[in-house]
Amino acid sequence: MKRFDIFGTLKKDMDVIEKELYLSVEGDSPELTETSLHLLRAGGKRLRPVFVLMGGKFGSYDIERLKLVAVPLELIHSASLVHDDVIDDAETRRGKPTVKAKWDNRVAMYTGDYIYGRALELTTKLEAPEIHRILAKAMVEMAIGEMEQIRDFFNTEQNIRRYLLRIRRKTSLLIAISCQLGALAANADRRVASGLYRFGYNVGMAFQIQDDLLDLCGTEKQIGKPPGSDMRQGNITLPVIFALGDHHVSEPLRQELDRIQAMNGQCDVSEAVQLVRASSGIAKSEALADRYIRKALDALDTLPDIKTKKHLREIAHFITKRSY
Amino acid sequence: MKRFDIFGTLKKDMDVIEKELYLSVEGDSPELTETSLHLLRAGGKRLRPVFVLMGGKFGSYDIERLKLVAVPLELIHSASLVHDDVIDDAETRRGKPTVKAKWDNRVAMYTGDYIYGRALELTTKLEAPEIHRILAKAMVEMAIGEMEQIRDFFNTEQNIRRYLLRIRRKTSLLIAISCQLGALAANADRRVASGLYRFGYNVGMAFQIQDDLLDLCGTEKQIGKPPGSDMRQGNITLPVIFALGDHHVSEPLRQELDRIQAMNGQCDVSEAVQLVRASSGIAKSEALADRYIRKALDALDTLPDIKTKKHLREIAHFITKRSY
Repeated sequence: MKRFDIFGTLKKDMDVIEKELYLSVEGDSPELTETSLHLLRAGGKRLRPVFVLMGGKFGSYDIERLKLVAVPLELIHSASLVHDDVIDDAETRRGKPTVKAKWDNRVAMYTGDYIYGRALELTTKLEAPEIHRILAKAMVEMAIGEMEQIRDFFNTEQNIRRYLLRIRRKTSLLIAISCQLGALAANADRRVASGLYRFGYNVGMAFQIQDDLLDLCGTEKQIGKPPGSDMRQGNITLPVIFALGDHHVSEPLRQELDRIQAMNGQCDVSEAVQLVRASSGIAKSEALADRYIRKALDALDTLPDIKTKKHLREIAHFITKRSY
Repeated sequence: MKRFDIFGTLKKDMDVIEKELYLSVEGDSPELTETSLHLLRAGGKRLRPVFVLMGGKFGSYDIERLKLVAVPLELIHSASLVHDDVIDDAETRRGKPTVKAKWDNRVAMYTGDYIYGRALELTTKLEAPEIHRILAKAMVEMAIGEMEQIRDFFNTEQNIRRYLLRIRRKTSLLIAISCQLGALAANADRRVASGLYRFGYNVGMAFQIQDDLLDLCGTEKQIGKPPGSDMRQGNITLPVIFALGDHHVSEPLRQELDRIQAMNGQCDVSEAVQLVRASSGIAKSEALADRYIRKALDALDTLPDIKTKKHLREIAHFITKRSY
């Protein structure tokens, strides 16, 4: 999925955000400035800032205020990625070497801590205690989600509810509050902010399910790493949980997962990938992602009719446009 | 150094803080609650909360407000320790197994992130943007300080200024703002808050130098780990920098440090410890710590004459009371 350069009206302001992102990590430490810029320059969809700006369109849109929410949200997301790369022992992200790979784990750890700090520093420029509270709460929930992911590594007995709770914390929440905080920072109506939260939450759920599908069904070129990376590290995602319940593949898949765990992921995972692809897990996951998208669209219906609604609808459809 | 149970008047309120500390990390994640409580229960001097409460005595002392600063400051300190233990590959802290040792590095990483999040969540209950700004800035500076420490591992060419800048960020700043934020949360006069910042800054510098001296001159029982741990991991502290400039020991010491680095710290460091102890580095470091204490006492002189001044003076003296 490329950056959302489809929205011409936001393009200029997204350039402002991009510049602010780089500025926000510059400072007294040449090392941390360098590692942070490396991380940020590796790119990304900037999904969270896009949602902040679009949320802002439902109120008194002011880029100077909105950037104080958009940039911290992208920074928090980036900091969580750099800490993830330490955990996942990832060598590349988006096809570029990770901070962990280019420097080392210690540097990646403090780069994450530094970026979290910079995110907060920026937010405090906005005198809005409610926004600070929502951001702090999101950081807590994200750490819990990450911890749950570790806890459930190679747990083939986990149910769908557990998966959904985990991705809610790990992904959807931050996207939900991106939409919500954009509206709140623009002093939009509180019911509008809640509607945007629901939109973002459901889009976030669909987005993560889609991302998990892509890791199994995409090509190495599309994903930026070999397919099946999630299974390699023990991350049992929705299609795999469904496949484990499909009697056509459940036994051989369970054996493959045991083998991958025994080999600490240092083995070929293509057999496991093939089994999941051949199962009903793909179609079932796609159906669930589509259901979340429908819920997101329902949430949009409650919002005032402005042009941004059309763009939000396009993003929602874009997320489940499958290229594999 | 034991906890500061010498201050009877604060004892009751420190019990409140202790209880709040434990409460603050309880939540939806049984795993993170357990790891965080393990970390907090391992103890510590609670130096930062003590300073917050004492700072509060210079204004309208209200434990309900002060705890919203004291607990986050101790949490931020604790989160930085758990991340340090990952970096230092430490098996024990204060004689107890570290989170990293009892669980693993990944758990320690997310425990740190979680505790940072909890700290911020708590602070946002206090509607005081200036306090949020000071805290966020401190988190950034601490991450820079930690990064500088990694950068300077086994760097035998570093000068004293570089060491002082590093411990300023790593240690003194958080102690300085503990004193300052206590005063600000109690709506004390701003000049008083600045005086307390200066006191805390200088006490913090003395405290870190003293801690670095203890690692070289203390017994294993006093330190909770074998002497020379800093050198083992490549952390070149003030006494070592002074010793490297002392021609009686500089050559053999440099050779020992090269050997420790080549062995990745997996070797006996007692020869290096003996060399530093035999050098002029100990007395010179003690003299510098004493100078910082004098500056801290000078800062106290500018403050209103309340009983707490006497206690702050006692803490300052207590820090440089040498037991080795």
